[in-house]
Amino acid sequence: MSVARIAVVAGDGIGTEVTAQARKVIDAVLPGADYNEYDLGARLYNRTGEVLPASVQTELAGHDAILLGAIGDPSVPPGVLERGLLLKLRFDFDQYVNLRPSKLWPGTTSPLAGVKPGEIDMVVVREGTEGLYVGAGGVLHKDTPAEIATEESLNTRHGVERVIRDAFDRAQRRDRKHVTLVHKTNVLTHAGNLWSRTFAAVAAEFPGVTTEYQHIDAASMFMVSNPQRFDVVVTDNLFGDILTDIAAAVTGGIGMAASGSVNPERKFPSTFEPVHGSAPDIAGQGIADPAAAILSAALLLEHLGRHAEAARVTEAVAAEVASRTPGAPLRTAEVGDRVAAAV
Amino acid sequence: MSVARIAVVAGDGIGTEVTAQARKVIDAVLPGADYNEYDLGARLYNRTGEVLPASVQTELAGHDAILLGAIGDPSVPPGVLERGLLLKLRFDFDQYVNLRPSKLWPGTTSPLAGVKPGEIDMVVVREGTEGLYVGAGGVLHKDTPAEIATEESLNTRHGVERVIRDAFDRAQRRDRKHVTLVHKTNVLTHAGNLWSRTFAAVAAEFPGVTTEYQHIDAASMFMVSNPQRFDVVVTDNLFGDILTDIAAAVTGGIGMAASGSVNPERKFPSTFEPVHGSAPDIAGQGIADPAAAILSAALLLEHLGRHAEAARVTEAVAAEVASRTPGAPLRTAEVGDRVAAAV
Ligand SMILES: CC(C)[C@H](C(=O)O)[C@@H](O)C(=O)O
Ligand SMILES: CC(C)[C@H](C(=O)O)[C@@H](O)C(=O)O
Repeated sequence: MSVARIAVVAGDGIGTEVTAQARKVIDAVLPGADYNEYDLGARLYNRTGEVLPASVQTELAGHDAILLGAIGDPSVPPGVLERGLLLKLRFDFDQYVNLRPSKLWPGTTSPLAGVKPGEIDMVVVREGTEGLYVGAGGVLHKDTPAEIATEESLNTRHGVERVIRDAFDRAQRRDRKHVTLVHKTNVLTHAGNLWSRTFAAVAAEFPGVTTEYQHIDAASMFMVSNPQRFDVVVTDNLFGDILTDIAAAVTGGIGMAASGSVNPERKFPSTFEPVHGSAPDIAGQGIADPAAAILSAALLLEHLGRHAEAARVTEAVAAEVASRTPGAPLRTAEVGDRVAAAV
Repeated sequence: MSVARIAVVAGDGIGTEVTAQARKVIDAVLPGADYNEYDLGARLYNRTGEVLPASVQTELAGHDAILLGAIGDPSVPPGVLERGLLLKLRFDFDQYVNLRPSKLWPGTTSPLAGVKPGEIDMVVVREGTEGLYVGAGGVLHKDTPAEIATEESLNTRHGVERVIRDAFDRAQRRDRKHVTLVHKTNVLTHAGNLWSRTFAAVAAEFPGVTTEYQHIDAASMFMVSNPQRFDVVVTDNLFGDILTDIAAAVTGGIGMAASGSVNPERKFPSTFEPVHGSAPDIAGQGIADPAAAILSAALLLEHLGRHAEAARVTEAVAAEVASRTPGAPLRTAEVGDRVAAAV
């Protein structure tokens, strides 16, 4: 049996460039893994009109994890690749823990005055299979003055409880052991009430973990005024999408923002990808920063139980970033080489 | 006939303290206005169980504008006062333009390194009567493992078009004449498509205004990495709630964040209130900053067509804030006195 079967979906734009580095680093730290490459994204769609052929999805399901680069291109209408590929994988592979660590690394600069490396260290546990992302909605009387469009947020006790429990599990293994629930209970009273009650119930199982609640608007403000206060944050799909981009911004941009769409039971493969997009404007030049992609590979290793290997990759990326000369040009492949050599 | 009939809902916590200053300043600049005070908020609710008695609502409807302080207290369950008072006024009085200017004023400091006063100057035009705020949703199988909770976002062409047109109108009267639409068209495809199509249609009526689209996650990031880029932003109710708190954070906090819930046709009274809450922790001490409340009064004057008076109030607040000694204690009433004397 193979050490690990990894599906590689490098995708569009800089996706292919950064994914090559992530793979290089996994290879260095976990020799003998099997890779299968899948050409999905804008190219496939523009050539064939297909986004995720059923046969490919079946093959993907046979892997331990999916290493994803970036999906998206201005030539494709909004939603097609997102709904048809990224979100389809999250939903069909029950990737209910959308994991997004944010850390201000040595060598990086926060746009926030006076915040120093090491001071921000949080992980947002974003629900990945429910909420407004389910695609429940429609349009009536399109293109007439009577048009209405709806979007429905669906939240189940099942879905809310499991992601909250995952957040508490993680908090318990961290230094500060603190979980913040973020929602908008004063307006979204139905879903908010379900989240609050479930949060309280799960919290009772973790007496060693301290808790806090914040509305999404207040939390977004605190992400700017005092991001140091956050340890583990648990929230719904849409709020998590927004909060993690603010968290990335205050930790110096999406250059270091890794993510995992995780099925913790490993019943289905989990997907690991940088938060950044395909960046068509700089694609093909070999200048994209692969740090976020390599850190996503570290999350992948962690998920496969390769804790020591994951730690080595994370440390190597941190060291590489800390050693950079501010303002000096960056070569994608050289960063990958340096990290691969260091692990 | 009276110069203006203003309903005063000072509300909870520091609401009463800051509203007194706002009223003092309106009095100084617009002598002869009639005021009626309404005791609404946590006190009334805790005493009587009522939030907005029908008779009070009828009386409020007879005013030109409502000056509101802050509503909310930990003793009241989440949603009761928000849904029953603040949102009820927005919906029943058709306050579809939720106006939130954000400016980095001289004398204030942004938490963002290197951003200087004068560089951030935007107004978010947030839709105020639709979206996820309509309260459409419910709970099934409560407190069982089968529980589900829903929230529905309702968007009409009517509602979307009028707020977008308002945003373009405002942009046309500003220096940069630029409108950014913020939504999440790649996930909320139904509502997103309605917003995008309507935005394009209205934009065609304003050839002198430049336009741009951003996803809410990207816009939230830009609010931190490059808030200078925004001029007028138009967005839905929930995204506007979040974005305006980030905008407040990067312009030095909610101390200067004013807002108006506006019915532009003046068929119903509009509400003007600071974005900050009732701050029970500092209530009663006379140390709350009334700047946001007074700037909200300036928005009120502007709405009533008192452009010169509004400008004088805004300038007086700006001057007062610029004259403050950093770190020196602030007395609510003295700030009010100084601004009232200056206008
Ligand atoms: C591309 C888009 C569908 C996706 C999301 O909204 O989840 C992205 O923004 C992310 O955060 O992974
Ligand atoms: C108090 C709450 C209902 C309100 C909102 O969500 O609109 C507040 O956050 C605001 O921004 O005015």
